[in-house]
Amino acid sequence: MPELRKDPITGRWVIVAADRAMRPTDFIREHVVPAGGRFCPFCPGHEDKTPPEVLAYRPGGGSADGPGWTLRVIPNKFPALRVEGELNRNGDGIYDKMNGVGAHEVVIETPDHMLSLSDLTDKQVEDVIWAMRDRIVDLRKDGRLRYIIVFKNHGTGAGATLEHSHSQLIALPVVPKRVREELDGSKRYFDYRERCIYCDIIRQELENGSRVILETDHYITVAPYASRFPFETWIIPKKHSSHFEDIEIAQAQNLGWILRAALRKIDKVLERPAYNLMIHSSPLQEGAMAHYHWHIEIIPKLTHPAGFEWGTGFYINPTPPEEAAKFLREAGLV
Amino acid sequence: MPELRKDPITGRWVIVAADRAMRPTDFIREHVVPAGGRFCPFCPGHEDKTPPEVLAYRPGGGSADGPGWTLRVIPNKFPALRVEGELNRNGDGIYDKMNGVGAHEVVIETPDHMLSLSDLTDKQVEDVIWAMRDRIVDLRKDGRLRYIIVFKNHGTGAGATLEHSHSQLIALPVVPKRVREELDGSKRYFDYRERCIYCDIIRQELENGSRVILETDHYITVAPYASRFPFETWIIPKKHSSHFEDIEIAQAQNLGWILRAALRKIDKVLERPAYNLMIHSSPLQEGAMAHYHWHIEIIPKLTHPAGFEWGTGFYINPTPPEEAAKFLREAGLV
Repeated sequence: MPELRKDPITGRWVIVAADRAMRPTDFIREHVVPAGGRFCPFCPGHEDKTPPEVLAYRPGGGSADGPGWTLRVIPNKFPALRVEGELNRNGDGIYDKMNGVGAHEVVIETPDHMLSLSDLTDKQVEDVIWAMRDRIVDLRKDGRLRYIIVFKNHGTGAGATLEHSHSQLIALPVVPKRVREELDGSKRYFDYRERCIYCDIIRQELENGSRVILETDHYITVAPYASRFPFETWIIPKKHSSHFEDIEIAQAQNLGWILRAALRKIDKVLERPAYNLMIHSSPLQEGAMAHYHWHIEIIPKLTHPAGFEWGTGFYINPTPPEEAAKFLREAGLV
Repeated sequence: MPELRKDPITGRWVIVAADRAMRPTDFIREHVVPAGGRFCPFCPGHEDKTPPEVLAYRPGGGSADGPGWTLRVIPNKFPALRVEGELNRNGDGIYDKMNGVGAHEVVIETPDHMLSLSDLTDKQVEDVIWAMRDRIVDLRKDGRLRYIIVFKNHGTGAGATLEHSHSQLIALPVVPKRVREELDGSKRYFDYRERCIYCDIIRQELENGSRVILETDHYITVAPYASRFPFETWIIPKKHSSHFEDIEIAQAQNLGWILRAALRKIDKVLERPAYNLMIHSSPLQEGAMAHYHWHIEIIPKLTHPAGFEWGTGFYINPTPPEEAAKFLREAGLV
């Protein structure tokens, strides 16, 4: 008998097809391994082929847009939104529109074209996290910007157009609807129980254990109860905090380890799949919130949403999260 | 400068990348043409390889699960939900779950394995519409069922696992969140203006003309103002009606023509792409509503939602709907 499960934050239902559980080998997969050999604007020596950098880490020193960097942040050459211009809202009969004001940046995670994020050292992954945090702290000074989504598309199946390992950051002039839904859902729970729903999820998952993949001093990695996708994986900080950019040093160091560990397990079980990674955090211009809790969501690209999902917002997940967690928990880290 | 457009029904924003508009030939495409040659359980003569039919049209007569049919509806052999069993809702700590009670059926649209829906005659497409309507009217007698989503996944890129042309129908024991959002959004508009938002959309689109693809006595086909995807296409009945299953005979006949015409134009411009088609209609157990208006949405599969879309519910559409409408409007029907 299939089971319908409700996401406790957004209220979205998922059909978990428990009686015909699909195992990792059942999914048609893309193996994401950089091929190299083509001209790459993200490689060292090609710094003049990108817009001027907005941030770089050069442990040995060196000048901007020159070599010697271990990580580099640049504006996207083909931005979805642009920093220039006034933020005008206009009507068009019954419709509403707005100028495309915002920012779109790229974090080049390593100078080495042939490495994926999961191949980097813990310290390098930690540096990626600091770069994301540093850029948010800088961009939030612009009062026109209301929300920053940090995400990574890994592999062509996940939407990546360049294979050199990178993440992206888009700053938006409005708080997106899906973010508002998470905020509202967690607020409703908080109003009723006077507790953060994510803190409650951490407690229940650690007690139950069946969906836990990894646990450290600062984080748990779980297959969420109402996973929309096979092998969907969340990393949640144990200490309550609504804004990712408020991350503490010990937390950032530990996140370098646990994020890399989660990705290595996913790589092992699903043979280096394409994936999307998103940091869910709070709106820039709103203060600390007791009801919302930042976290990371990772979605390996194994299935495609189709007519049913587009029409209803329901998802059919052919792999129960308990099975996915077991595979990932048991996979070694090497 | 990119433009942000707001969907007037759901409040979702879309980034329309107007300054680097992608043309039909810019998209990597799957050409969906049946190959045949493999065993197909949907072909005539294999009726015993599917669960017993729940509906069939046999103009020349003949017995159930035998040959002679022009259209056949069967339960899905691997259903996402099952008709049997009590509908129990249970808690699991902070989580909620429910039995997977519902129905999952398949409409085999033609006995001919080598034809797509757009290759059928207007009358055959009309018959597909009647079959969907007939199944809804039958299933809604079951008070446990609250919503039926009718959809079609065409081509492997759109999630189809069998190439013989078919549509699907899933009956759910809850009204999905995305449907509720459309109902709520159109209700808010109605409460404020005392008019149906879809009726207003029809009026404004016909006046403006730039996003209209086709117009008949009973329907308009448009590229919606806040299209999430390139070449997204909606078919909206001109006469206000909240429930698809209340369709009148003249409307069903005309829908056979306009649906086929829209699909043929999409086939021509995008070279037989994979697509998803969904009928957006009202909950089964709720009466006629002045604020909601059933319609069909067609999404050619040209792009993949990635980290940005999953994280925010925002979409980046690289083809302005006005450009898409122009290509589709100008494409011939032959």
